[in-house]
Amino acid sequence: MIHIRPDGQGAVEVEAKVGILKDKHTGQRLQLPVLVETILTPNSIDSRFESNMTLAQHKHFNSILNNLKTFSAQPGHTSAPLEYTHLHLVDTFYQPDSTRDKDKVRVTRDEKSGTVLECMQKVRLGNLDVYSPKRAADWRISVNMEIPVPPPIGTATLTRKKDRMSYAHEEFTIDLTQVTSSTSPTSKSEVLHELELEVARPDYLLSTASKRGDPNVSETERNAFDELIRAFVNNARILVRNAGEGWQ
Amino acid sequence: MIHIRPDGQGAVEVEAKVGILKDKHTGQRLQLPVLVETILTPNSIDSRFESNMTLAQHKHFNSILNNLKTFSAQPGHTSAPLEYTHLHLVDTFYQPDSTRDKDKVRVTRDEKSGTVLECMQKVRLGNLDVYSPKRAADWRISVNMEIPVPPPIGTATLTRKKDRMSYAHEEFTIDLTQVTSSTSPTSKSEVLHELELEVARPDYLLSTASKRGDPNVSETERNAFDELIRAFVNNARILVRNAGEGWQ
Repeated sequence: MIHIRPDGQGAVEVEAKVGILKDKHTGQRLQLPVLVETILTPNSIDSRFESNMTLAQHKHFNSILNNLKTFSAQPGHTSAPLEYTHLHLVDTFYQPDSTRDKDKVRVTRDEKSGTVLECMQKVRLGNLDVYSPKRAADWRISVNMEIPVPPPIGTATLTRKKDRMSYAHEEFTIDLTQVTSSTSPTSKSEVLHELELEVARPDYLLSTASKRGDPNVSETERNAFDELIRAFVNNARILVRNAGEGWQ
Repeated sequence: MIHIRPDGQGAVEVEAKVGILKDKHTGQRLQLPVLVETILTPNSIDSRFESNMTLAQHKHFNSILNNLKTFSAQPGHTSAPLEYTHLHLVDTFYQPDSTRDKDKVRVTRDEKSGTVLECMQKVRLGNLDVYSPKRAADWRISVNMEIPVPPPIGTATLTRKKDRMSYAHEEFTIDLTQVTSSTSPTSKSEVLHELELEVARPDYLLSTASKRGDPNVSETERNAFDELIRAFVNNARILVRNAGEGWQ
């Protein structure tokens, strides 16, 4: 799944997006002759993954996640409560310095204060598309490296405003985001709604991976990576199971 | 999955066969663009399931099952020992009395004594084909009704000699069978080698099904059906995982 491992520092980002796998020829949702969830062989089908839901779906997930938050905060609830943050961010994208380098540089600022929060180059390591014939939506697992870079010089090629409701639960973050993209201040902007699940602590993920199956550590440590991935997949499936019709 | 439920008495037969899903056009093993085991949508693909393995594969499975039998009989082994029976059977098939009725009548005799052991009409209720891209073989789950019928009159249309090594383990039977078929005493016979897993006690299966999720029974009883199916699927997967190349 992971094709390249770039040198240098950086954090591994592991995320699942909820969306629709579309047949590129028909523009319709992919149809495969299988009854249950399955992983597509990479590059075997002429399909694309689109993670844009309707505003109604966005509200539906917002309401589900808010209910979960309320429910999980009640005394006597067994699992950890969901934590909630409302973020207003602006991403600007720049061409990389080197022409060899195809990955854009992203600067993320707090919308209100203008403070730079992150300056990153995101390098795609691999995707897995998961086809879910019993559900209204499919999902995609993406693994990327996020490499900190110096602030870029030049003009941004794309600006993306993100109104993000971010829910933290145990080792995961669930982000429900309204994205408004524009290529210039005068061009017409495009509004998208996205739902992502992310492993909250990439360092922890890598540390569990390094101890996977190690006979010199405790059983809990030895199994922690598999347990984390199991929980990640479970959470992604719960999101997908709650998806209704309303994917664009 | 089950399309019809015939009236009258009879036992439900639930079995998994190991074999190859073949594309009817190419005659080759089916190729789907997925990475993991999945269930095919019935009647969506022009494929057939062939459960015939080479003699070498047959010997391979025989050796695995004999080793398991020896291993499971050792003192201190945690699960129940495998029981083994070597059966020599002859099936003869007859056209049904009624022309409305497409299901043949099968008479099973002990080869040596000629004693009639069973006189059955097998009614197919449904199949599920399981495609296993990571394994050398696929598998098919079949659910049938076996209805006892009076001994038929007339001439047999097909005779099938079965040399069967039957291993019983907990709630399942694993049958490794060499089948020699002939349509008449003078015609050339065909030899096939098959591997099947069967739920040993259909009555128990139905009794657990009737208590599935019932709040008035114990948790063990309530979950017994799911547990039985889980073990059935696990056992089928273990057989498929042990399949090598050698399917015809």
